Amino acid sequence: MKRDHWRVLIMAGGSGTRFWPKSRRACPKQLLPIIGRNSMIRQTYFRLKGLVPASQVFVISGKDHVSLIRRQIPDLSAAQVIGEPAARNTAPCVALAAFMMRQSDPNALMFVLPADHIIRDRRQFQRSMHLAAQAANRHGALVTFGILPTFPSTGYGYLELGEGKGPYHRVRRFVEKPTLGTAQQYLRRGNFLWNSGMFVWKVSTILESLQRYMPATYRLLAQLDWAHPRIARQQLTRVYPRLEAASIDYGIMEKADNIYAVRATFDWSDVGTWDAVSPFLSRKEVGNASRGKLIAVDSSGLIVDAPGKLVAAVGVENLIIIDTRDALLVCEKSQAQKVKQVVDRLKSEKLSRYL
Amino acid sequence: MKRDHWRVLIMAGGSGTRFWPKSRRACPKQLLPIIGRNSMIRQTYFRLKGLVPASQVFVISGKDHVSLIRRQIPDLSAAQVIGEPAARNTAPCVALAAFMMRQSDPNALMFVLPADHIIRDRRQFQRSMHLAAQAANRHGALVTFGILPTFPSTGYGYLELGEGKGPYHRVRRFVEKPTLGTAQQYLRRGNFLWNSGMFVWKVSTILESLQRYMPATYRLLAQLDWAHPRIARQQLTRVYPRLEAASIDYGIMEKADNIYAVRATFDWSDVGTWDAVSPFLSRKEVGNASRGKLIAVDSSGLIVDAPGKLVAAVGVENLIIIDTRDALLVCEKSQAQKVKQVVDRLKSEKLSRYL
Repeated sequence: MKRDHWRVLIMAGGSGTRFWPKSRRACPKQLLPIIGRNSMIRQTYFRLKGLVPASQVFVISGKDHVSLIRRQIPDLSAAQVIGEPAARNTAPCVALAAFMMRQSDPNALMFVLPADHIIRDRRQFQRSMHLAAQAANRHGALVTFGILPTFPSTGYGYLELGEGKGPYHRVRRFVEKPTLGTAQQYLRRGNFLWNSGMFVWKVSTILESLQRYMPATYRLLAQLDWAHPRIARQQLTRVYPRLEAASIDYGIMEKADNIYAVRATFDWSDVGTWDAVSPFLSRKEVGNASRGKLIAVDSSGLIVDAPGKLVAAVGVENLIIIDTRDALLVCEKSQAQKVKQVVDRLKSEKLSRYL
Repeated sequence: MKRDHWRVLIMAGGSGTRFWPKSRRACPKQLLPIIGRNSMIRQTYFRLKGLVPASQVFVISGKDHVSLIRRQIPDLSAAQVIGEPAARNTAPCVALAAFMMRQSDPNALMFVLPADHIIRDRRQFQRSMHLAAQAANRHGALVTFGILPTFPSTGYGYLELGEGKGPYHRVRRFVEKPTLGTAQQYLRRGNFLWNSGMFVWKVSTILESLQRYMPATYRLLAQLDWAHPRIARQQLTRVYPRLEAASIDYGIMEKADNIYAVRATFDWSDVGTWDAVSPFLSRKEVGNASRGKLIAVDSSGLIVDAPGKLVAAVGVENLIIIDTRDALLVCEKSQAQKVKQVVDRLKSEKLSRYL
């Protein structure tokens, strides 16, 4: 394995609104210690230790978060933490990184990792990355990581696997978030995996795919002066906002045919909503997951995050209780996705100091 | 009416544990602005304006609260705010005040008012007090205030009224908190009123009743040197803890036969638990009573008190949400009386800094 070609892109551009009130505009979810003591992006970075040297890790984030990320990961130089001129979803972000990486190494192999996934088993994670790198090199493939479904989720995209017995599989197709009925079928059929949103590919492979499936995006970026990074960055501020806002899944993966999947052997959670954090919190009271001191009277199924505060629950069940300095959330667990609506209301009611 | 004999005792000895986490040992419910901008004891004091002069108002409270009460009601002299040497319920408190008042005026008429009731209509309140004073003087009676029941409460004692058409009635009997079935009967029968816990009597009448129904208490207090207030206070620190801890209802009212009741024509709430505050809070969100900014998404029936904080509720109903600097309560409305259990847990788990 030619590991000196390996490059990592950490995508840190999310707004994390479903994690309000902890996640705020100035410090979204991925920059917070939602789970554990380190922020999610720091955990993502530490997970790479021994896989690639710090000098080969790049972060793309909202431009307001660059300085905070550099404080959180001082190993990275200014050139390695790139602020997006505008939020354009994941495809332009991947494309930008691919052009940059090709400039320094036309044979670069690119790992694409969201900054906000929780993976505890670093050893198995790195083993899977090695396998994916092998598939990407050997087959000139777009390689993704499939997670064995544990329930018929309608919140994830799925990978339908083709035949094969090896450690990685050809993907027959890439499917969008299904209805519940379809998800139940997928679960029964066994050859469907959740799309984790982590990818490995050669820079040359992804750029070819981009040229084919998102030609306008490719063309706009190809004309930048990549040989002169400072000039390219200036050009980007003008060009980037004009790129089509599309996810890499929609823009490339659902159309491409050279996709492979590695079955993840590591634990994985994308921790999409507050109700997903309970397995990770301590359990000081039976049936309640909590960060901070909790007194529960005739209460169960609580998720509590209220550092430095005592929380007392009386006669309540299945609530998410998140306390911060200036805002408090109390949410029924099954409705955690509606936290986004609170953020929408804050915007429309001009309460932007709470965003 | 000889109003120069009128004296008021404000009983401020409660611990208010069901109003945790706002009500704390250092500053219980009656010293807090649970409803409105003024503390409950200040509202009680202001309600007397025009009825009796400040010099004739006395407060008995826990000894740790004397200085805070004097700060809240600067009109009162040191001699008018008396710290109980120990908490012994209401009968010893009334007895102590009666002995003190007799010393300065053997013809004193005594109003006994808890510090933590909410009464908005001062005019009707004072009118009722005048009627009660009349009954107490004319009939040598123990006069209480009856509240017309609006539901079959099992949380109040009841007064069964005898016949009569005037503005006050002879009370046939004084009954303890009933079962639900009995309370429903009382509601149907119409001649049962809630016992408000406010009383008016001549000092001589209550001391005679005390001598008859609580002779040990009477005897222990009667031997103090009341002619020398400073000596009497010193003696009290030794004697008071030995008095039987009994409520005035249990100790006297349930046994006495010279009881009259004035039908209250004023609004009244003893605001016993958090769920009782909703009628008094502002309603910025439909169906939710709140102090502080509230964003409710698919939520209703909330009672929110979180000054200076934004509270967001998602998919929840009938909750009490009370936020303070160091402690947060989330409680199902119908279980508000269990807040006391939280306080018990704090005691047993040695979390006394939250008490």
